[in-house]
Amino acid sequence: MVTIAVDAMGGDNAPDAVVRGAAEASLSTDSEVLLVGDEKRITELLGQVRHDPERIRVHGASQAIPMDCKPREALEAMPDSSLVVATRLVAAEGHADALVSAGNTGAVILACATAFKCIPGVRRTALAAVIPTERRRGKKQDPFTLLLDAGATLRVSADDLVGFAMMGAAYASIVSKNDKPRIALLSNGTEPTKGTPEIVAAHQTLVGVEGIDFIGNVEGIDIPRGKADVIVCDGFTGNITLKMLEGVSQTVTNLARYAYRRKVSWKLAMWLLSSGIKRIKEITDWQQYGGAPILGFDRLCIKAHGRSGPRAIRNAIKVAERCVKQDLAGRIETHVAAAQRHQ
Amino acid sequence: MVTIAVDAMGGDNAPDAVVRGAAEASLSTDSEVLLVGDEKRITELLGQVRHDPERIRVHGASQAIPMDCKPREALEAMPDSSLVVATRLVAAEGHADALVSAGNTGAVILACATAFKCIPGVRRTALAAVIPTERRRGKKQDPFTLLLDAGATLRVSADDLVGFAMMGAAYASIVSKNDKPRIALLSNGTEPTKGTPEIVAAHQTLVGVEGIDFIGNVEGIDIPRGKADVIVCDGFTGNITLKMLEGVSQTVTNLARYAYRRKVSWKLAMWLLSSGIKRIKEITDWQQYGGAPILGFDRLCIKAHGRSGPRAIRNAIKVAERCVKQDLAGRIETHVAAAQRHQ
Repeated sequence: MVTIAVDAMGGDNAPDAVVRGAAEASLSTDSEVLLVGDEKRITELLGQVRHDPERIRVHGASQAIPMDCKPREALEAMPDSSLVVATRLVAAEGHADALVSAGNTGAVILACATAFKCIPGVRRTALAAVIPTERRRGKKQDPFTLLLDAGATLRVSADDLVGFAMMGAAYASIVSKNDKPRIALLSNGTEPTKGTPEIVAAHQTLVGVEGIDFIGNVEGIDIPRGKADVIVCDGFTGNITLKMLEGVSQTVTNLARYAYRRKVSWKLAMWLLSSGIKRIKEITDWQQYGGAPILGFDRLCIKAHGRSGPRAIRNAIKVAERCVKQDLAGRIETHVAAAQRHQ
Repeated sequence: MVTIAVDAMGGDNAPDAVVRGAAEASLSTDSEVLLVGDEKRITELLGQVRHDPERIRVHGASQAIPMDCKPREALEAMPDSSLVVATRLVAAEGHADALVSAGNTGAVILACATAFKCIPGVRRTALAAVIPTERRRGKKQDPFTLLLDAGATLRVSADDLVGFAMMGAAYASIVSKNDKPRIALLSNGTEPTKGTPEIVAAHQTLVGVEGIDFIGNVEGIDIPRGKADVIVCDGFTGNITLKMLEGVSQTVTNLARYAYRRKVSWKLAMWLLSSGIKRIKEITDWQQYGGAPILGFDRLCIKAHGRSGPRAIRNAIKVAERCVKQDLAGRIETHVAAAQRHQ
């Protein structure tokens, strides 16, 4: 049986939302969930919700890393925090197979880097983010594109970009049930000569790699269109891209709210549109995707959104389970080795 | 009197839209417009529209550079193209003071770089783009943020970023009638330590420069919010950012169209919202802004959008006129010198 360690104290709504999400997962998956954190509080919360006691265990950790911490300082000051204890349990063979945390992103990445090892052949790990797009893809018909790196590495070499592409391909094939995801490099033009020297060199390598569907460069305009299933870039560009999408979505929400309040006719219009808006929200809802994987370590970590509710946590646990069962680490190793033959 | 040279053959709708825009400008500004291109065709078109013949002259040029050209090859092959002739007229003292072109962006930048000189102290010129935001600013209450570099220089040094900031400040102060525009660096975090080494160093310099309102780093999420009036980044990031905004806006339009066709109730809703949508279109309409300035040359060039209609061309001519009258080049020189005392 697969065991997923869950950092019960990480996230804006922890531990309540995390415990509830784990309880839901215990009823709908084959995995065992290991909830790490304040034993008394977790047990109390579990007493209030339906769950399968055969599939949930609690592991005590006396400290909790706050969301607005400085990662390095926090990890050093709190060796018995739920995050540090959970990563240790995952790192030590036999205790747990993967980690789910909705805690501070920097702290989660650093805790993984401290406790886990890189997969042979992986030079640099990456945080992959999930972006809703216009297009549906894979057997699951999901509308998401995977973008990596989303902020772990500001500057990258050509080999790093190639590694990100191969890791993203391995992950997308499992999670979106998409055998041959379309992989692209994000650049300032679609021609192979466009972009920084690193992008141009990565392009040359990826063209020659067999077994993947490399579609070349995509531009910013292709991101919301969903032209690629996996978009590869450096962490600086990934960060700006993701945050701008968040800003645009907030602006659209603000405009809709304004329209709703401003005029009776606009209010009526928004009401008439509500079924459509609900549908857009459903297909673009990040909570159904669970979270952002940190790719490249021998153990998988799914970084759930800080604002995750129970559903996002449950889905993150499910995604982690699927990746363990389908040997994501092994697939990444094979993929990366295939690319290295061309470098 | 200020003379603005206009590349009559550049743009998707040239020469018709360009000649019409110039005709409108001749009736509403104090400048003289010098239309450069196919004399016969321009004269014919002018005969069909209201214009002030005292304020429009035509200068013949036998060739026209196509929109989908390769810039370097096209410029070399067409020494008598409207673009090349127009830049030459602007470069030679006394013929014209500034250039407006809606032609191929790469060709326009290259033609300027060939014919014009850099302002003393300017190391690198930049293409500045205009982004609609939620916030209104300046005496004109316009909702636009200036983003530079928008794609001229993929990789920049710290000094380049500082130069872009100072040039953007000078331009925004004239065009948005905003005495002290808020200047920011685009980065992956608001703290002064966040970003590439170039961004961190540029931040340190800009903090010490007097006479500007440097508000520090902004993140991607702050772009649509309009937190800054001038946003500074390298050309790669600027290109991705702009094109992604274009993509998102297309996606929103597609969704609205889909809603309109899908259900009678949604159609009614879109009709009820139409006054609001019109208002959003009005305040975010790039045509009112005229175009993107190329900053740093001793002569100004306004690169109008390829799809420009007459109104965009007229506004680009007006913006160019205002910049010449208010000595943009002199202001940039002063601004850049102020920053260099701190580098």
